[in-house]
Amino acid sequence: MSADSPPGDAWRTTIAVDAMGGDHAPAAVVAGAVAAAAELNVDVILAGRSAQLAPLLAAVQAPAHGNSSGRPAVAREQVRIAAAEDTLGMDEGALASWRRPRSSVAIACQLVRRGQVAAVVSAGSTGGIVAAARLRLRSLPGVMRPGLAVVLPTQPGPTLLVDAGAIADPKPEMLVAFAQLGVAYAQVAHGIAEPRVGLLTIGAEPGKGNRLARRAHELLASAPPHGGLPIRFVGNVEGSDLLSGKADVIVTDGFTGNVALKAVEGATAYAAQQMRDALQGSAPARFGTLFQRRGLRDLRGRMDAETYGGAALLGLEGTVVIAHGASTAKGITSACRLAADLAHGQITEKIKERFGPGRGGYFLRRSRADGQA
Amino acid sequence: MSADSPPGDAWRTTIAVDAMGGDHAPAAVVAGAVAAAAELNVDVILAGRSAQLAPLLAAVQAPAHGNSSGRPAVAREQVRIAAAEDTLGMDEGALASWRRPRSSVAIACQLVRRGQVAAVVSAGSTGGIVAAARLRLRSLPGVMRPGLAVVLPTQPGPTLLVDAGAIADPKPEMLVAFAQLGVAYAQVAHGIAEPRVGLLTIGAEPGKGNRLARRAHELLASAPPHGGLPIRFVGNVEGSDLLSGKADVIVTDGFTGNVALKAVEGATAYAAQQMRDALQGSAPARFGTLFQRRGLRDLRGRMDAETYGGAALLGLEGTVVIAHGASTAKGITSACRLAADLAHGQITEKIKERFGPGRGGYFLRRSRADGQA
Repeated sequence: MSADSPPGDAWRTTIAVDAMGGDHAPAAVVAGAVAAAAELNVDVILAGRSAQLAPLLAAVQAPAHGNSSGRPAVAREQVRIAAAEDTLGMDEGALASWRRPRSSVAIACQLVRRGQVAAVVSAGSTGGIVAAARLRLRSLPGVMRPGLAVVLPTQPGPTLLVDAGAIADPKPEMLVAFAQLGVAYAQVAHGIAEPRVGLLTIGAEPGKGNRLARRAHELLASAPPHGGLPIRFVGNVEGSDLLSGKADVIVTDGFTGNVALKAVEGATAYAAQQMRDALQGSAPARFGTLFQRRGLRDLRGRMDAETYGGAALLGLEGTVVIAHGASTAKGITSACRLAADLAHGQITEKIKERFGPGRGGYFLRRSRADGQA
Repeated sequence: MSADSPPGDAWRTTIAVDAMGGDHAPAAVVAGAVAAAAELNVDVILAGRSAQLAPLLAAVQAPAHGNSSGRPAVAREQVRIAAAEDTLGMDEGALASWRRPRSSVAIACQLVRRGQVAAVVSAGSTGGIVAAARLRLRSLPGVMRPGLAVVLPTQPGPTLLVDAGAIADPKPEMLVAFAQLGVAYAQVAHGIAEPRVGLLTIGAEPGKGNRLARRAHELLASAPPHGGLPIRFVGNVEGSDLLSGKADVIVTDGFTGNVALKAVEGATAYAAQQMRDALQGSAPARFGTLFQRRGLRDLRGRMDAETYGGAALLGLEGTVVIAHGASTAKGITSACRLAADLAHGQITEKIKERFGPGRGGYFLRRSRADGQA
């Protein structure tokens, strides 16, 4: 929707963007956020160093630019700056975010906390963002730990993997909570009424897997406690099912999920490279590719991580979307679109509903072994 | 080497092949085992139902067949049958192998135990084979649990993943033992003098990962206890490094290893299919593939799991090679080649050496939590 929509639009939402996070920050982030404000039905608050952001913003908002790019013009009040004089480096992890209350990502989270924005977008380091968000945003009732949800580009529909790396050593009960978070996401963002939930493990039978997976299977197969909404559990899935479309939501611990996600990314890139080498290996083979340009271009688009918007940290009061660290402006715009879609779909309300009225029960007791960040 | 090598050859070795394991057993297994006896420097004992195996063996050993296929003829005494009247189904797991002392895989393991063969090859269910082998073969001193080693087809050299699924909930110390097993394998089968060992986890820094990985990192970075040989530890690797060639040996727990291995297999197959669809999507694109036949054929060969021989269960008195359940005769021959290579390279002696003289210490105490199969 263009910038001339009425500002009082019921669907209009505001997103905070961490302008200092990511390999190409702040220039690519500013450009991507301005494009989001122009193309989507959102206002944006950029958190970061005013001295750096103001000139970048002025440059992309200049009318000449707006016209020459053919994009709808962005009204000045649609993109504002929230001053944050500190930044979190890409190599800084969880601890740094505790020490940096004035970092751009911390300021962005505070905007959510105060109710000024509905969601945060950042292309900073995942560990830093997760820690900052957990420190500054309340958990939703029933969710002790947020889960990181990542979309896998399966055909025909996407598959959601939760947790892709937020909690390395979760309790079995948390995998049930991840299932509820994933179901809410798949309903809101993928339009699936009753998402099929699978448990990532190493064998099809219920007794297969490590201790965590075996116990999680029992819990997922039982009715959810405390009046939570039922889950459509389809049983165990294996590593080979991540791209098979066998489940709409796949739950696992953050350690296995992160290894599996990166294994899929690495193997896909490896196979594509091997295939390219095979296609380019000789002069006749290269000649052959002339006839395949369109098909190969479509495939690249489909496999491109930048079109998927990034990972969403779910289960907090306010959604946090983590874009890839190497995101260009296009990647930031996609991340803003995902954040806006989740906010418009009222994901937070959907999650609260799924955990039911007695939802506090599962996680009220903190276990002793629960010391990790 | 052909069948006319002297039978007393110092390098000659005998392998037991589970003739009843695998989707295409026994016909494909017999054919693959006979081809191994003809092409490699090995004798074979087929464990299985004599009534089924004898006619199959007679058919492939007939001189007419040997001549028409152009293969070297196989002497009758090179392939024998050990009667095993029971079989383990492909869907049967660990428990069944306890109840079936006369199953073909159990008989094959007993041949190793009695010193009649150096290695076992089976295309049966991994869970069943691992359980049968652990029940019937002694662990090598210092190795409390065997690890499953699988070769990943990285370029330029292969990478070995240990453990790919034998032990779902190992102790951190077992990951150090897996490293020693993997180093011995990489030295024997890949000819790498000082293999680089990486730990599969979710971040490059030493403190990253779950509790198991963090503790394993500390142990791998320290000198091995009890006079064991030092490990060339190159630190943490991530899921995306499985095919990057960053390490020669990657150690992990059997749960994560199995999920990661299947994720790589699934993603590679998915990417190849997507690429094929892109190449075949239109008539001109299909025409283009005419010029790429050779390159695509080479690639298929390289990515073909059947050329890699299968997974090796290491750390027992006698090597056990587990071929893919869907193995054809070619896959069985590759598995026999791997088993023969490991036996010729004296992998068992190499492993004993690596654990050092005081090697019993690490695993003498069995932990209480150690209940899984």
